[in-house]
Amino acid sequence: MAVGNNEFSGMQAVNGIRLGTSNAGIRQTVRDDVLIIEMMEGGSCAAVFTRNAFCAAPVHVAKAHLSRTPRWLLVNSGNANAGTGLQGMQDAQQSCRLLADLTGTAMEQVLPFSTGVIGEYLPMDKLAKALPEALHRLNADNWASAARAIMTTDTFPKGASTVISLVGNPVAVTGIAKGAGMIQPDMATMLCFIATDARISQPLLQQCLSQSVDTSFNRITVDGDTSTNDACVILASGRTEAPEIQPDSEEFTVFSAAVQQICQQLAEAIVRDGEGATKLIRIVVEQAASDEEALCVAKTIAHSPLVKTAFFASDPNWGRILAAVGRADVDALQIDKVAIYLGELNIVKGGERAPSYTEVAGQAVMAQKEITVRIVLARGNARQEVLTCDFSYDYVKINAEYRT
Amino acid sequence: MAVGNNEFSGMQAVNGIRLGTSNAGIRQTVRDDVLIIEMMEGGSCAAVFTRNAFCAAPVHVAKAHLSRTPRWLLVNSGNANAGTGLQGMQDAQQSCRLLADLTGTAMEQVLPFSTGVIGEYLPMDKLAKALPEALHRLNADNWASAARAIMTTDTFPKGASTVISLVGNPVAVTGIAKGAGMIQPDMATMLCFIATDARISQPLLQQCLSQSVDTSFNRITVDGDTSTNDACVILASGRTEAPEIQPDSEEFTVFSAAVQQICQQLAEAIVRDGEGATKLIRIVVEQAASDEEALCVAKTIAHSPLVKTAFFASDPNWGRILAAVGRADVDALQIDKVAIYLGELNIVKGGERAPSYTEVAGQAVMAQKEITVRIVLARGNARQEVLTCDFSYDYVKINAEYRT
Repeated sequence: MAVGNNEFSGMQAVNGIRLGTSNAGIRQTVRDDVLIIEMMEGGSCAAVFTRNAFCAAPVHVAKAHLSRTPRWLLVNSGNANAGTGLQGMQDAQQSCRLLADLTGTAMEQVLPFSTGVIGEYLPMDKLAKALPEALHRLNADNWASAARAIMTTDTFPKGASTVISLVGNPVAVTGIAKGAGMIQPDMATMLCFIATDARISQPLLQQCLSQSVDTSFNRITVDGDTSTNDACVILASGRTEAPEIQPDSEEFTVFSAAVQQICQQLAEAIVRDGEGATKLIRIVVEQAASDEEALCVAKTIAHSPLVKTAFFASDPNWGRILAAVGRADVDALQIDKVAIYLGELNIVKGGERAPSYTEVAGQAVMAQKEITVRIVLARGNARQEVLTCDFSYDYVKINAEYRT
Repeated sequence: MAVGNNEFSGMQAVNGIRLGTSNAGIRQTVRDDVLIIEMMEGGSCAAVFTRNAFCAAPVHVAKAHLSRTPRWLLVNSGNANAGTGLQGMQDAQQSCRLLADLTGTAMEQVLPFSTGVIGEYLPMDKLAKALPEALHRLNADNWASAARAIMTTDTFPKGASTVISLVGNPVAVTGIAKGAGMIQPDMATMLCFIATDARISQPLLQQCLSQSVDTSFNRITVDGDTSTNDACVILASGRTEAPEIQPDSEEFTVFSAAVQQICQQLAEAIVRDGEGATKLIRIVVEQAASDEEALCVAKTIAHSPLVKTAFFASDPNWGRILAAVGRADVDALQIDKVAIYLGELNIVKGGERAPSYTEVAGQAVMAQKEITVRIVLARGNARQEVLTCDFSYDYVKINAEYRT
């Protein structure tokens, strides 16, 4: 299941970036499950990774390799290479070495990424055999097939693309992502790869990415579970005619906004494809005393199984939202000042059912596929938004049957 | 659904305590939904309540009335009288007044309790009409019917009882509880009423109850949602022949152990009746640096929808447990020292799959109805236990259909 129309098109090729996919048969044989992304020399790269203490072997290796500017990203789906100890580390390093040997680069210039089942060793033979084909297919126009190759429980590939103008020159920002379950990114989501031909220094690129991730991937949740393999990478090939982007410049503002837009589109696509999702829920907390407080209230609602099943049932059971607000870790909350809105409809005013509220009106909002819940705390000026989805039979089905 | 055999019997009558039930037809007409508990004069009472900021009107009123020793508890199921504002407060007070007038006591000596749907006003006419019948039926042997009258989505009534000997005299401790969903008690569970004929001062009784609740109801979770109506009350009628229990005495130790045992039995019964539960999961975290840390890891696992659906599917998908440990808020966790056990089976050692682990052995443990997961952090000496259940289709079904 998935919420809304999730077709994407118009994926702009990025100068200096090529992609190739192939099938290694890691867990299934129908779909490509290996992706290689090449960046020509002279670019820069920034990345953010999961904060899960049990982070996967490829995350460790990718972080270490970032001391040099990478030339290659090597991605596989179907196996996360997480919880695999020393053998997993050796496999992640060996996969870099395999690609480095085939392409005549240093193994430190390859970043490895894995997604899929935790706790099984990477099938290195299968991976090795699949690399030549992926290299053979390298092409700047392969973004759509790349988005498909990194899917696991995703039901649709996720991509977003835009072209901005910097000092009169077109600059592309194009990204793909995967993720549907184990989604409460705490740095970045499961896997996201963005490329641009902008010319930009590594520190500035990192600043731009970190800010964008914080207001996109770090504001979504499907099930509150943070993955062991989260990673979000941006490659900047520098192959535009536009001059290098300078700190605090108008160009940096324009470029950052474009990266943020791509991140937000991809983050929203992940929630729309949340495991078993039938609805997209936007939770807005306003007039909080601080951003932390606003986020805490929003996430408490977003993680409540009772709230999520009520959305699935299109039941305006607002008492569950109220109970979630009440148990959030907010010091000395005055409930008689709290207001709650479902879309434009005021359901709770002064801590109790709004006089104007009717069940029929509540039902009408709940029947929609995309719903905004707004909580007004009347404590200050902070505002935060979190995107989530509902909790359906299919969430249980997908996760009860995942490995079997 | 419910886990295990949940029959209870041998509910000891308590000297000085009588119970009566009747049907007010608040949400349904088949089962009694009103319970009155009377304590004779000369007893003491202690209570703990929800910390949910949106606590219900009866919780406010009961807290206020505790300044005097109560003679009556008045409980209804089917309607929580929560999120009902000023009208709700007036209704809770009026329900006390109704019973006080019928029994010739002060209204402050009546404590009100409600459980059921949030956000609807109490049907006061129905309640008023049902009180005389409940009073008429007052009897010391009505514990079983009392346990049934307070049920909402519960599939079985919950009771526990024991008799201890204090200075050669028998003292009964008997309790009932209700709860199946919106269960992560943060003080006490949904509703629990315990009575004893022990003679004990109010401060000592409160100390005993608070300690017992902390190691029982505050260590269970079904869905991580804390109710607006949680309350746990103990009535001590003082009608035993045993002398008054003194602080720091052997009698206090024996009595406290009995109260704790009753609380733990009732708390376990609530998890066994967790909405949609097919399995009882005991999560033990050992060798943590502090109790807080141990509890944080245990609750992160207990709240993970991915872990809970894996238990439902009897799938030894231990990567999900490992990922939950990894995202728990533990500072500088060294994953290469972490061990995880399923029952007696070592599944993770040194942060990766234990060499001795086999999928077949894991499957065998997961197929059991009651499973202990043990996490050894190797950081200190703290140990905490949390009880939870799995996450099934029926949890979604029950909560998607609750009000409709």
